[in-house]
Amino acid sequence: MATLRRWVLKRRPHGEIQPGDLELIEEPIADLKDGEVLVRTVYLSLDPTNRIWMSDQDQYLPPVQIGETMRGGGIGVVEQSRSERFRQGEIVNPGFVGWSTHAVADEHAVHHVPTIPGVPLTAYMSVLGATGLTAWFGMIDIANPQPGETVVVSAAAGAVGSIAGQLAKLRGARVIGIAGGKAKCDWLVNALGFDGAIDYKNEDVGAALDRLCPNGIDVDFENVGGEIMEAVFSRMNNFGRMSLCGMISTYNQEGAIKGPSDFGRILMHRLMIKGFIIIDYLPRAAEAFAELGPLVMSGQLKWKAHVEDGLENALDAVGRLFTGDHDGKLLVRVSPEP
Amino acid sequence: MATLRRWVLKRRPHGEIQPGDLELIEEPIADLKDGEVLVRTVYLSLDPTNRIWMSDQDQYLPPVQIGETMRGGGIGVVEQSRSERFRQGEIVNPGFVGWSTHAVADEHAVHHVPTIPGVPLTAYMSVLGATGLTAWFGMIDIANPQPGETVVVSAAAGAVGSIAGQLAKLRGARVIGIAGGKAKCDWLVNALGFDGAIDYKNEDVGAALDRLCPNGIDVDFENVGGEIMEAVFSRMNNFGRMSLCGMISTYNQEGAIKGPSDFGRILMHRLMIKGFIIIDYLPRAAEAFAELGPLVMSGQLKWKAHVEDGLENALDAVGRLFTGDHDGKLLVRVSPEP
Repeated sequence: MATLRRWVLKRRPHGEIQPGDLELIEEPIADLKDGEVLVRTVYLSLDPTNRIWMSDQDQYLPPVQIGETMRGGGIGVVEQSRSERFRQGEIVNPGFVGWSTHAVADEHAVHHVPTIPGVPLTAYMSVLGATGLTAWFGMIDIANPQPGETVVVSAAAGAVGSIAGQLAKLRGARVIGIAGGKAKCDWLVNALGFDGAIDYKNEDVGAALDRLCPNGIDVDFENVGGEIMEAVFSRMNNFGRMSLCGMISTYNQEGAIKGPSDFGRILMHRLMIKGFIIIDYLPRAAEAFAELGPLVMSGQLKWKAHVEDGLENALDAVGRLFTGDHDGKLLVRVSPEP
Repeated sequence: MATLRRWVLKRRPHGEIQPGDLELIEEPIADLKDGEVLVRTVYLSLDPTNRIWMSDQDQYLPPVQIGETMRGGGIGVVEQSRSERFRQGEIVNPGFVGWSTHAVADEHAVHHVPTIPGVPLTAYMSVLGATGLTAWFGMIDIANPQPGETVVVSAAAGAVGSIAGQLAKLRGARVIGIAGGKAKCDWLVNALGFDGAIDYKNEDVGAALDRLCPNGIDVDFENVGGEIMEAVFSRMNNFGRMSLCGMISTYNQEGAIKGPSDFGRILMHRLMIKGFIIIDYLPRAAEAFAELGPLVMSGQLKWKAHVEDGLENALDAVGRLFTGDHDGKLLVRVSPEP
C-alpha cells in the first residue's frame, strides 16, 4: 500500500523552532474520490511566514492547529487523477501542498504551472511564484519608487528582497541593501547592481545608512523589523513609503511586535506605511508576471534557489531563514523533478 | 505713530504652555515698501499644531525661534497698500499672519479671500479654510471611506473631526465619534448625524468601541494619539486605513511619540497608515472646496466657531485646545470685522 510522509505540528514553538515541535509521520495514501488528484510534491517552499503559522498570535490566516499537517506552498507532479482536468505527469500547484510528500487535492484547488521552455522549475517556486509577486506588489504597487529616489531593502539578499531591489533599480532608484555577511553584500552590488550594501552582522547599520544615503531614504522595503527597521525608519524623508512585507527579526518572539520608537515621524514627515500579504494580490498576479516573465527569460532579473533535499530535512532547513544560512530562495526538493 | 502688538516666543514650553513662555510686545509699524501690504488682523486661528511649532522637536516646518513672532494662520483687512493687487478694505489671507494685530506682508504672500454673500467670515477660518481642507483630504483623499464601512473619528467634536465625520457620513459610512463630555457627544449624534459617540472622559473607550463597532473599524481618522489611538488601532479590520491628522494628547510631552503597541497588526491586517500635513495639499485645495462650498451654502455641513476676543487673550485661549474647553473652531477676534 502506498504511503505518504507529512510533518505534523505537535506543539507551538516558543522562540526558535525545536526538533520536537513538529513530527514526521507516515501513513497510507487514501484512495482518490471522483474529482480528486494525487500530487507528488517536488518542491516545497520554506518561508519566514511559516513561523507565524506555527504560532497562535493574531495573524492573517488561521494558525496551523496542533495535529494538522504543517502548511506550505509547493509544486508537484500529478501521480493519479480522477479529474478530467488533470493528467498523470502534469506539473501542478495544488494550493497549499503542505509539508508532505503527497497531497490529495480537489481538482478546483489545483492549477497547472505554466512552464516555459528554458526556465527551470525552481523559478516557479521563486521569481515566477509567490516570491516574485511579493517583491513586485510590495515594491511597484505599494512603494512605487521614482527615478532618483533612495530605496533601502532589508534582508536584501533574501528571495523577496533581492528581486524587490532589482525592480527598484529598473525604475531608476538608488538602491541600498541590508544583508548578513560580506558574500551576500558583494552579490548585491556586483551581481545585482545595487548601489550599496550594508553588512548588518559586521557594520553599524545607522552609520552605514548615513554614509550610503546622504539624501535620506524615500522607500523602505521592510522585511526585518526591530532595530534594522528603526535605523531605516528614523532616516526616512518627507513623503517616504514603508512597504511592510515582513518582520522576520520578531517572529521568534511572543506577544506584541514593537514598532518604530517615534510614531510622530509618520505625521511630521508625512510617511505612509502599508502592510501587505501576497495572498491578497493573487487576483492581480498577471500584472506582475507581465513584467517578471520577460525579465526572467531575458536574464535581466537574477535570482537564486537554495535547495535542500528530502522532506525529512524540512524542519532543520526552515531554521536557516532565521540565521540567514542560505543562499537564495529556500526550497526542499521532496522528490525528483519529472 | 501707529503701533502693533504681537506675541513673541520667549522660551520653549515644557509640558503645558505657561504664561511666561510668550510675551506680548508693542512696537511701531514699519513704513511700507513698494509691493507691501499692511493687513490688520481680524481673526487668528488657534490650532493644536501651534504647540508643535513652539517646541524644537523634529517637525514639518522650522520651529518658531526664540524672539520670533508666534506663527499663526489668520485673515484680515487691508489697511494700507503699496501694491497694485490690493486695495484698502479688502479681506485677505496674508499667509501666516502670526499672533499679531497687524502684518506687513509682501504682495506675493497675500491672497484675496473669496467671500460668498451669506457665509460668515469665520467660515473661511474653519470649514472653508485650512480646517475644512484638513478634514477633506484626510478623510476623502487618504482614508476614502466606502458605504457601509465603520469610521471612527477622535477629537470628533473638534473643528477638523466634526467635518471629517460628516464627510464620511455623506459617503455612506457608519461613523462613531470620540469626544470629551456629554454635550459634545450629544451634538455629534443629534446635530451632525453621527451613528454613535463615545465620551472618553466618562466611558471606557475600548468597551464602547466594542459595543458601537461590532464589525470592527475600517477607518481611523486620528487626531489624538496615545491611549485613544491604541483603542481604535487594536480594533482595526483587514485593509483598514489610519489617516493620521494629529496626536494632540502627545504635544505637551517631550521626546519620541509612542505608537500603537502592536506594530505587527499593520502587517497581519494589511493596514495603511498615512500621516499628512495640510500645507502639502494646498495646491489641490480646489478639489476639496468644490465639495465643501456647496455643502456649506446649502447648510448640509454643520460647523461652529468658538471666538475669543482680543489678541491679549490668545495665550490663555490656546490652552483650551488641550483641555477641550471650547466649542468649535477656536479663533481669536483680534479686531472687528469690517
